[in-house]
Amino acid sequence: MFVRNAWYVAATKNEIADQMLARTILNEPIVLFVNGNQEICALEDRCCHRGAPLSLGNITETGVRCGYHGMAFDRSGKCVEIPGQTTIPARAKVKSYPLVVKGDYVWIWMGDPEKADPADVIDYPPDDQVNWPRANDMLHLKASYVMVLENLMDLSHLSYLHRTSIGSSETDSANASMDVKRTPTGMKFLRVMRNADAPKNWLKRYPTGNKVDRWSDFDYIAPNSIKQFSGGVNAGDYDAGVRDGSHLVRTLHTVTPETEKTCFYFFNKADGYAKFEAPGKPRTWASTSDVFKEDQHMLEQQQLRLNNFDVKNLMDINTDVARVQMIRVLKERLQLEQETTGQASQKT
Amino acid sequence: MFVRNAWYVAATKNEIADQMLARTILNEPIVLFVNGNQEICALEDRCCHRGAPLSLGNITETGVRCGYHGMAFDRSGKCVEIPGQTTIPARAKVKSYPLVVKGDYVWIWMGDPEKADPADVIDYPPDDQVNWPRANDMLHLKASYVMVLENLMDLSHLSYLHRTSIGSSETDSANASMDVKRTPTGMKFLRVMRNADAPKNWLKRYPTGNKVDRWSDFDYIAPNSIKQFSGGVNAGDYDAGVRDGSHLVRTLHTVTPETEKTCFYFFNKADGYAKFEAPGKPRTWASTSDVFKEDQHMLEQQQLRLNNFDVKNLMDINTDVARVQMIRVLKERLQLEQETTGQASQKT
Amino acid sequence: MFVRNAWYVAATKNEIADQMLARTILNEPIVLFVNGNQEICALEDRCCHRGAPLSLGNITETGVRCGYHGMAFDRSGKCVEIPGQTTIPARAKVKSYPLVVKGDYVWIWMGDPEKADPADVIDYPPDDQVNWPRANDMLHLKASYVMVLENLMDLSHLSYLHRTSIGSSETDSANASMDVKRTPTGMKFLRVMRNADAPKNWLKRYPTGNKVDRWSDFDYIAPNSIKQFSGGVNAGDYDAGVRDGSHLVRTLHTVTPETEKTCFYFFNKADGYAKFEAPGKPRTWASTSDVFKEDQHMLEQQQLRLNNFDVKNLMDINTDVARVQMIRVLKERLQLEQETTGQASQKT
Repeated sequence: MFVRNAWYVAATKNEIADQMLARTILNEPIVLFVNGNQEICALEDRCCHRGAPLSLGNITETGVRCGYHGMAFDRSGKCVEIPGQTTIPARAKVKSYPLVVKGDYVWIWMGDPEKADPADVIDYPPDDQVNWPRANDMLHLKASYVMVLENLMDLSHLSYLHRTSIGSSETDSANASMDVKRTPTGMKFLRVMRNADAPKNWLKRYPTGNKVDRWSDFDYIAPNSIKQFSGGVNAGDYDAGVRDGSHLVRTLHTVTPETEKTCFYFFNKADGYAKFEAPGKPRTWASTSDVFKEDQHMLEQQQLRLNNFDVKNLMDINTDVARVQMIRVLKERLQLEQETTGQASQKT
Repeated sequence: MFVRNAWYVAATKNEIADQMLARTILNEPIVLFVNGNQEICALEDRCCHRGAPLSLGNITETGVRCGYHGMAFDRSGKCVEIPGQTTIPARAKVKSYPLVVKGDYVWIWMGDPEKADPADVIDYPPDDQVNWPRANDMLHLKASYVMVLENLMDLSHLSYLHRTSIGSSETDSANASMDVKRTPTGMKFLRVMRNADAPKNWLKRYPTGNKVDRWSDFDYIAPNSIKQFSGGVNAGDYDAGVRDGSHLVRTLHTVTPETEKTCFYFFNKADGYAKFEAPGKPRTWASTSDVFKEDQHMLEQQQLRLNNFDVKNLMDINTDVARVQMIRVLKERLQLEQETTGQASQKT
Repeated sequence: MFVRNAWYVAATKNEIADQMLARTILNEPIVLFVNGNQEICALEDRCCHRGAPLSLGNITETGVRCGYHGMAFDRSGKCVEIPGQTTIPARAKVKSYPLVVKGDYVWIWMGDPEKADPADVIDYPPDDQVNWPRANDMLHLKASYVMVLENLMDLSHLSYLHRTSIGSSETDSANASMDVKRTPTGMKFLRVMRNADAPKNWLKRYPTGNKVDRWSDFDYIAPNSIKQFSGGVNAGDYDAGVRDGSHLVRTLHTVTPETEKTCFYFFNKADGYAKFEAPGKPRTWASTSDVFKEDQHMLEQQQLRLNNFDVKNLMDINTDVARVQMIRVLKERLQLEQETTGQASQKT
């Protein structure tokens, strides 16, 4: 079950710069492209005539022409030409989807178009950090999008799954302070490891000592996104309000369900330390994509173990405080949508 | 749902010339082969003893011996030997299928054997054109056999899907005259584009001018076959009765369902112009197989888009006149069979 | 449906000598490994916290630590550490399985642990033949474990499926005497071909004449194992009690269901003739694994033919006497278990 009234990342701008992209989102086949008028379009990828994928057709001035029998549609999904006939019946149309282009992404609205408010699209990068060098990538995962969010909301996995890449010590991890609170759009989770060991690779790049304060500040925006503000400073400096001058990143994680058990995981990392160091200085940490592939393998295997298993048999532990709260927020959001827009949410 | 009381192409004669062929037809596993007495056999590819595929066994004088425990069957499906015992019970048998060899094909009857009349097998090539050079091929498609028939019955797709291979202009296509009429065995569809542009490659081979009359005369023989007579002559000559001397082909299209969503598409093209030109002259048109692979890709993607979609949501357009009529004929044939031979059609 | 109260081979000792092994047995995901204390462990391969596979974690002194969030389990499945908390709730545990190491194998008990009696594990090799050279291998088959047992219980297939490898003549096979009798643990099947042709390759190794007596003595131990004692002597010697001095093997066949339609087939062959011949003499027969791959291909194709077919439509023949008896024993065992331990057998 998916929240439909929400903005999801459909693609990066790059992905559709010079080609039609066929992508299934929330179980619906969608074609994304830029029409001849340079407008971005998202249409049902199934012609209303014989069901052919429009993504096998050709881009036109206003939309797309089906590559099978030539029906043409504009970006609203309305049929504007039927070869061999002059009258175009009202039912000659395909579904279209509201879009917003913001940051590096094309965001799509999968629910009731009346409810789509572009102001709800997440700001990333924040205005004052727009010039931090950014790296973004996408992983196509054979796992539920919920598992990806859960993974991020329980950072204790850094000490185990990412032990050899970006991990903290088990003790530091166990001693982390965790603060969770609800927000109007979801919930926040602040995790701080004070007086922790600086990871070995850390010292190669940052001018901190062996003992550091590390923090991760998560802003979960239901149903699908997490803004993360993470960094580290010399031990003792965190509570003194210091944030700058060392490890400092703002990451946007946003997950788009393909099906119940597969998803697209987009992540986008802005590096706030780069401004302090000489340009071109080589990075010594594992790339974000490499680290997240460790997650991918775990999540896909986890999905296999849960396919025929009742998750009620699983148990929560203390470090799950943020994850449990996030799931509560997500479930409430699902219930609310079902109650208020019952019909719309049953469309697929 | 399939029409069972019908002749389907099981294989080309070549396919079984020197080997056993295991092929699923209408969801039934069948083994095809030539026995030691040079008779063609079609048996259930599942031994009645332990279910082993007979196609893994050995050909005998009269039939096949199972390669697992050695039971032997003649071409009627009757067991003629059981190793280790002298009595052969009546139920020791596998299903056998009526066959007719005609033209390049082995035709199989999937329904009530009592109703199998070899006279119903399609004549191809027609007697007076038996010496036209023929080319035949088969595509194994991950799409319903119905989609293949529909594809042929709406030639407007030539202007789009085959635009760069054998396509006509969109205008000529839209102006085509279309005549549809019922026949005792199905329906006929005549499509004529008068005073149309000759395709560029056309002029390299045929002695016509830039403007031509092109016709396609389809004879749909329910449930699975279409005889096509197509050609082109100088503009104005078609209505004067001229057919010879330029592009001139007789094609047999026949589709054999493997399952509901996969099929074998056999096509066989006899070239009536070859008799007018020097032997060995190289062909300049795309090969039929290459063109049909464009269809294959479209049909398989179309099938994927329709797998979880109610086709009632699709719509017909003017150019669908023949396709719609054909589907009506096919459905009537299915209903008729269900009413008159209810039990037989439920066998599998 | 599986018999759960039984010992199944989970793995060879070699398979887990230096790695964790993830293997599904009777539809349950299991991880097998040797802990730091050199004890063999078999645990549910699914952490009770978030469902992660424990096989992606790390071996500890007493068990395993999950590679996702670090929960640690001892070999009884009890959680012994939860990072970030001191209290360990009673429900923090995963399923563990009784194990017995015997011969070359690790045997696992899939049913009620109360009923697990190590004395029931099959003795192989027998004490007095422990020094016969042994060869063992495993095939992962896409076929029901029952088909593997049936294959062994109808040796008439040697004349057909193994015609070119280890086959006997069809006549000798048809004339074989067959004796079947129930035993407390299953049933026995003795098959003797008297005065049979010695296989061609046989003569290259064994000092017998062209005519031999060949026997196979099967001991089916329900639900999953067959001990086979086979050999050959000069014609006439069998009934005189001679067994030694020529072809002489003791084989243990044991099959472990992975799912209803896939299994692991372990076989282990001890060669009693090797003691009579010069060490290092090369073998001239096809290797057991090569011969059994002929079975594998047949069984997997047989499974495909039976997937959507009612086996009630198959028929038994005279040579099936042992196979039919074996199936009866297996079904009785299944029924008995369902009646006496109804709940336990429904666990998965």
